[in-house]
Amino acid sequence: MRMFLALVHHPCVDRGGNVITTALTNVDVHDIGRSARTYGAERLFIVTPVTLQQTMVAEMVHHWTEGEGLTRNDRRAEALSRVTALPSVAAVCEAIAEHVGAAPLVVATSARMDAPDVTWSGFRERLRHHQGPVLILFGTGWGMASELVEGADVCLPAIVRDPSLGSSDGYNHLSVRAAAAITLDRLLGA
Amino acid sequence: MRMFLALVHHPCVDRGGNVITTALTNVDVHDIGRSARTYGAERLFIVTPVTLQQTMVAEMVHHWTEGEGLTRNDRRAEALSRVTALPSVAAVCEAIAEHVGAAPLVVATSARMDAPDVTWSGFRERLRHHQGPVLILFGTGWGMASELVEGADVCLPAIVRDPSLGSSDGYNHLSVRAAAAITLDRLLGA
Repeated sequence: MRMFLALVHHPCVDRGGNVITTALTNVDVHDIGRSARTYGAERLFIVTPVTLQQTMVAEMVHHWTEGEGLTRNDRRAEALSRVTALPSVAAVCEAIAEHVGAAPLVVATSARMDAPDVTWSGFRERLRHHQGPVLILFGTGWGMASELVEGADVCLPAIVRDPSLGSSDGYNHLSVRAAAAITLDRLLGA
Repeated sequence: MRMFLALVHHPCVDRGGNVITTALTNVDVHDIGRSARTYGAERLFIVTPVTLQQTMVAEMVHHWTEGEGLTRNDRRAEALSRVTALPSVAAVCEAIAEHVGAAPLVVATSARMDAPDVTWSGFRERLRHHQGPVLILFGTGWGMASELVEGADVCLPAIVRDPSLGSSDGYNHLSVRAAAAITLDRLLGA
């Protein structure tokens, strides 16, 4: 199994459910890049159709891997050297297929997953035997547009706390940085 | 069991191991506040002896819970309404003892934990039967000063990926936002 991640800025939804393109957030790239590197994911794709934002990702990566940032923090360089911006999830799948020689198993995540088709432990076990690349998608804004979730091969359950600790009041608003870290840990953690 | 969190800005160490006070980082407060709320922790304490930074925390909380931010995002208000700045870990322990009527079990976390005295699953199980408050400490900068780690009641293991996935190259540099999210999930997640 070879793990790839994508942080999706389009198509996402706003709080009203309208399909939008969200803006790049620097700390997402840093945090999810560091988490990806810690858990052995090969690459983090930043998915945005906005060419200016793609350029911003490239400049951020350059700053930390070849520019001034490198002398400040080489651990950051290692994490960011695995980050690439691409215009769409389809382009990410093509890039992985070209690089690895097989199309990825596409995995959707959402805090509002109505119909997950795996359990966390079941999918963790399945990954241990999976041949070929896996691509996990993380949404920004108020989440990925339903077409992306419905088009994925696997939908992971929402991340919630242990119900035996008492009834939850339904508050479930992790940052995408926290959700990505927890997802990696649930699937690949010790 | 009643869960409390502290994000420690002093005493921490820099990359050279010198004891320092780190600066407040807004996104830490937001992310760890949201993770705390999602997993049912009662309060997030921001530990800094710098009164100006304590004031900044109070202003941030006010902005989101009573000021302009409230109209923008009431989920953020709910998370930030549980955030308080205090000058030291000792002051946090006193505040919890006063509020709950018992001193907390103090739990240290570190990416470089040499001598953990519990396993994750063992401590998760222990929490299910624990009476009274629990306080988990998260360091900033290059981690908490050793006096804090050594003074804690429990030292959790470092967060690492599953070794059965292949030998790790030792890269283990999660952001404190990611580490706090994973810690909460390992102890309180479904």
